[in-house]
Amino acid sequence: MNNMQQVAKYDVFEVTLTGKTEGNPFVDYTITGVFTGEREEVKAEGFYDGEGVYKVRFMPSYEGSYRYSITGSYRDDAEPVTGEFTVLSAKEGNHGPVQVADTYHFRYADKTPYYSVGTTCYVWELENDERIAETLKSLANTGFNKIRFCIFPKHYDYNFKEPRSYPYVGTPMDNSVLTEDNFWDYTKNPLENNTWDFTCFNPAHFRHIEWCIAELSKLGIQADLIMFHPYDRWGFSVMSKEQDDLYVKYIVARFSAFHNIWWSLANEYDLLQKKEEDWDRFGNILCEKDPYGHLRSIHNCIPFYDYTRPWITHCSIQRQDIYKTAELTNEWRDTYKKPVVIDEMAYEGDIPHFWGNITGQEMVRRFWECAMRGGYPGHGETYESEDRVLWWSHGGKLKGESWKRFRFLYDILCETPGLGLTSDAKFDYNGVIAMPQDETERANKTYFIYYYSFMQPSYKKFEFEDVYEVEVIDTWNMTIEKRGVFQGKFRIDLPGRPYMAIRFKKVK
Amino acid sequence: MNNMQQVAKYDVFEVTLTGKTEGNPFVDYTITGVFTGEREEVKAEGFYDGEGVYKVRFMPSYEGSYRYSITGSYRDDAEPVTGEFTVLSAKEGNHGPVQVADTYHFRYADKTPYYSVGTTCYVWELENDERIAETLKSLANTGFNKIRFCIFPKHYDYNFKEPRSYPYVGTPMDNSVLTEDNFWDYTKNPLENNTWDFTCFNPAHFRHIEWCIAELSKLGIQADLIMFHPYDRWGFSVMSKEQDDLYVKYIVARFSAFHNIWWSLANEYDLLQKKEEDWDRFGNILCEKDPYGHLRSIHNCIPFYDYTRPWITHCSIQRQDIYKTAELTNEWRDTYKKPVVIDEMAYEGDIPHFWGNITGQEMVRRFWECAMRGGYPGHGETYESEDRVLWWSHGGKLKGESWKRFRFLYDILCETPGLGLTSDAKFDYNGVIAMPQDETERANKTYFIYYYSFMQPSYKKFEFEDVYEVEVIDTWNMTIEKRGVFQGKFRIDLPGRPYMAIRFKKVK
Repeated sequence: MNNMQQVAKYDVFEVTLTGKTEGNPFVDYTITGVFTGEREEVKAEGFYDGEGVYKVRFMPSYEGSYRYSITGSYRDDAEPVTGEFTVLSAKEGNHGPVQVADTYHFRYADKTPYYSVGTTCYVWELENDERIAETLKSLANTGFNKIRFCIFPKHYDYNFKEPRSYPYVGTPMDNSVLTEDNFWDYTKNPLENNTWDFTCFNPAHFRHIEWCIAELSKLGIQADLIMFHPYDRWGFSVMSKEQDDLYVKYIVARFSAFHNIWWSLANEYDLLQKKEEDWDRFGNILCEKDPYGHLRSIHNCIPFYDYTRPWITHCSIQRQDIYKTAELTNEWRDTYKKPVVIDEMAYEGDIPHFWGNITGQEMVRRFWECAMRGGYPGHGETYESEDRVLWWSHGGKLKGESWKRFRFLYDILCETPGLGLTSDAKFDYNGVIAMPQDETERANKTYFIYYYSFMQPSYKKFEFEDVYEVEVIDTWNMTIEKRGVFQGKFRIDLPGRPYMAIRFKKVK
Repeated sequence: MNNMQQVAKYDVFEVTLTGKTEGNPFVDYTITGVFTGEREEVKAEGFYDGEGVYKVRFMPSYEGSYRYSITGSYRDDAEPVTGEFTVLSAKEGNHGPVQVADTYHFRYADKTPYYSVGTTCYVWELENDERIAETLKSLANTGFNKIRFCIFPKHYDYNFKEPRSYPYVGTPMDNSVLTEDNFWDYTKNPLENNTWDFTCFNPAHFRHIEWCIAELSKLGIQADLIMFHPYDRWGFSVMSKEQDDLYVKYIVARFSAFHNIWWSLANEYDLLQKKEEDWDRFGNILCEKDPYGHLRSIHNCIPFYDYTRPWITHCSIQRQDIYKTAELTNEWRDTYKKPVVIDEMAYEGDIPHFWGNITGQEMVRRFWECAMRGGYPGHGETYESEDRVLWWSHGGKLKGESWKRFRFLYDILCETPGLGLTSDAKFDYNGVIAMPQDETERANKTYFIYYYSFMQPSYKKFEFEDVYEVEVIDTWNMTIEKRGVFQGKFRIDLPGRPYMAIRFKKVK
């Protein structure tokens, strides 16, 4: 038993084998692994990684001794390849995949609560090495613990250049013909302008994304992977059903064993030409092929997808109203009975697009409105600097003001007794009153946050039977001021500024 | 024809007579005048002013020779009292009563457009002389051209003291028993704690209000008179039908001849115990007895009154949503096909009440959101200073920031070609695009304002076939920056701050 292979719990255990190269190994051959420990047996499909190399990946959920057996048509000998390995305890900070718990909230597989505070950088990972390093450095300084990005490259305003790699083997169109005025034209019939073999993946593209996922893991950040999106001049958004399914299965085989991934079937699904049956089919493939049941959702442009569909684990919402979004968190929780993640509630920035020019204050306000109602907000940043490097698309440096305030919010969320917050469904005209989702905590009235949003009361009066420690929270200036212990009727003075909150912690 | 009586057009012509005093002259006797000129004949009911004095008032709408004839049971002799008078041209600034024109807008009787920019000081006129003088001085420095206030005194938070006078003869309850915690109790059965003769008016109370109306007229301000309201410890809100009707007829007889009054049947009608049939009856009395057809509306707390009722000339709206109100102006215009006045869209201030603690910026934003959609916004101010004198209730000094910005808005509204603005019913994601209501102006695309609200684009791109003069408006800093003349495709740079607008005036 010397030289026994070892892997940490929730890390990727990978079996690498060589096999057949004739024909198209991406479609012609299979490779499957069965991984067996004392408390689980997982069947995982492998994938062709090019150059005659096949891989099967597995993420163990328990410590202890495991064995594996690899079979498939990837080579002609009938004998399975077998082996043994030991799963050690999880590395510090790796709590396993995020799951839904308590209907509206999340936790990691090891039961640690997960309070999602997200951002969006659509194709940060397809930039050059220098920018990617810069993005990772930026992320390390934030409180973000989720980032949404696309597996396919993106063609959109501010982003006409070529990505660092393509997911398929072939030749892209000449991007020198693109201008700000004509770039939409090339999204109409992308299949005519490019030549790709949609049955022949470019493994380097996916290997690089895996490296990025692993780097995010080191920072404790979930990779919310967008599988399809409409901002496309290459044709990746208009492949055939068979090609789509091949792609979905390929990424499931490659990415599922990473503990920190989420599946986002689409960004702005309603702008794609796919039908509900297509999304349902992809959802079913994920349910069937992803052994770890990573979170699954789909993001709208205008109409919501029906988040009650059984394959959807949580809402991934884009605002539907210029003025109100985060404030609707209660309604959406009530409607869908699933966690509400508002991934796009407009972006902080100064670009002409209506969705990309709110102030830092307004972004922070929307975050709190959402979080205090037991929802999970998402950030993006669209400042048009001279270099035209916008966080929302490219990553790089953060230039705004809101991002600085989200670790403060996150730290406060982490103090929630139980898994997450809820609030009165009805705005009670005294601010948003956040309280623990947990029924016992709520019954015992252990914890409240009154959030006052854009309002600027100079004081508030309260009446509580029990004894509470009272803190005044300035959500913009990131201060928590202890005001002492109160009971009965009392008054709390406030500075007469917006973005204030008052927290009550019951004294045992 | 020497010593012929004279009055200016739209001013009050008053005939004062003495008559019977036995019994209760407020209910026992009648007095009616008929005023006849070359182009109009007006029948107006008079009123008893106490001390044996009866008065009949008339507001002429034309210049020239008039005669009058006064009849009634106010004295026993059967002969009418007659006389002649001359109506001179209107005094400068008196354009006559405000009327509805072009469905959604207002104009004065002399066809001058009227762009309503209102404020609320519920009982400013029942304060002492010094405070009233201070309020009038404050108003003179603002752009407000309408003020809402109550004929009855008000009992509410920050306002427990006695008014300077009462509308009826009798004895009020002892207000020394009132505290912040118990004052609501005294609104439950007010008839038990006070003794009033609801058939016996106190003329001094109404004479003083008339003086205030006349002072407002000098400032070019409309007096939006609130007839009933629920904030009452005296019982004026729970009189009998007969007493209510007597009151309505009395104030119509007293106030109708003032050119600058509007009738607001109630503040927060839904908090009063009256029924729809009561409001309709009051509306019918106004329609029948007010010879000048002054504007009539009724203000809600929560549910809207049915503004389609024929006696209602315009909507008088209180916001129904903490976040969105002014933004709904289009919808309400479409629903009611009448001018939309949003008299309460929350107040600038810092009091604990949720409706009284928005910032100056938010107040100004709401004003522009409403005005750019062709609605008419209303202001109020609730800063809790040491003296606890709040503009919204008492008048006095203005302490906020928003009021300083409304003359600027008003001046811009005055440049509208035609009677008022309209906008695309649908927010087009490029801000609110305001344009003239007038169909010809709109067809000729003469005038647009793009208002960007809380958004902070650093530039906007346009494409216009015609030649336009372009100005950048900073609605908060009150600057209008000429940017030159543009045609075809062009870009307008903006400072990347909220509350900006761009105005386009077609070059002939």
